[in-house]
Amino acid sequence: MTVDHAAPTRRERKKLATRQALEDAALRLFAAQGYEQTTVEEIAEAADVAVRTFFRYFSSKQDVLFGEVASDRLGRLHTELAARPLTEAPLDSVIAAMEKLDLVGTDEEQQILARLDLMRHQPTLRIRYLELINSMRQAIVEFVADRSDTDARRDMYALLVAAAAAASWETSLSLWAESGGALSLRELRRQAFASLTAGLPERP
Amino acid sequence: MTVDHAAPTRRERKKLATRQALEDAALRLFAAQGYEQTTVEEIAEAADVAVRTFFRYFSSKQDVLFGEVASDRLGRLHTELAARPLTEAPLDSVIAAMEKLDLVGTDEEQQILARLDLMRHQPTLRIRYLELINSMRQAIVEFVADRSDTDARRDMYALLVAAAAAASWETSLSLWAESGGALSLRELRRQAFASLTAGLPERP
Repeated sequence: MTVDHAAPTRRERKKLATRQALEDAALRLFAAQGYEQTTVEEIAEAADVAVRTFFRYFSSKQDVLFGEVASDRLGRLHTELAARPLTEAPLDSVIAAMEKLDLVGTDEEQQILARLDLMRHQPTLRIRYLELINSMRQAIVEFVADRSDTDARRDMYALLVAAAAAASWETSLSLWAESGGALSLRELRRQAFASLTAGLPERP
Repeated sequence: MTVDHAAPTRRERKKLATRQALEDAALRLFAAQGYEQTTVEEIAEAADVAVRTFFRYFSSKQDVLFGEVASDRLGRLHTELAARPLTEAPLDSVIAAMEKLDLVGTDEEQQILARLDLMRHQPTLRIRYLELINSMRQAIVEFVADRSDTDARRDMYALLVAAAAAASWETSLSLWAESGGALSLRELRRQAFASLTAGLPERP
């Protein structure tokens, strides 16, 4: 979906393929037999690699579900925010970065839907999810404070913009997952963020 | 600070005193020598009770810091929400319940300040805190949906009101802790909630 500026080497392509095979195998097994019931050995076996290869890519079973997603989304948020012009109002920069981060491809959407579904039944996965959202919120607090030359720990405006962003991700993901992916994640996210920054609508 | 309707028996008073002694000892030791460095044995010793007595009150070291606070605040939120009249708009009910839950006594404030301070340096404690806020948010989602006769999992309005409440607690606690307790926690919380439900102020 995204175009890399430097084409990956064969070695890099091979690594990406192995990682993807492990992720696919893990999600398949988790869905079929349950997260707790699935062992790292089974995941490695299903992806046709050695257990020690699994651990070259992931530090734990949990990490297959969230490690990559977490570092990827957090990294992209940092990149998108840093790319916004210094003259732009920080709130507009946050809106623009969120637009770039929206899931719009079907493959990616399906992967996230599967993860969200597993999460409902797994408290440990929910914790990782809360931590990810929290890290993304923290990145926004620091961005807004930095662009406004304020102290992030004392800037209520920065904290509120970031809280609205975090809440709009959580709310839209939750409503979207509940609809089985039928609603538009982007529209839900836009609506939630607008409500939390410009005022809630009247109770419908 | 609160007046119990039924006076506690001597036995109950003794149990409360022991629990309080364990909490005080734990917070003192955590602050003096660090959370990780403190053992359950040391906490029991400092409170002058046996280790097995510690485990009659708390399931773990972490539990001393958050167990009681978490169940107490979550329980009070449920009680306050349930007590609101059925004819009241759900948003007003949430505002009223939050007012009842605000920390206003100096003792309680000092305890919470000490916990927030420890939390900054302890990822495991931060996770417990995120879970607590998340449970309180979930209680509000369910309350608003229930009073509105909607399905909590599909009601964006309920999710947004609850997200605004959760974010206003987090934001106000964070700004208040940063001020060392000098600012008014209640005023910060009111301001944050108003901004997230009625529109953010212009960037100051």
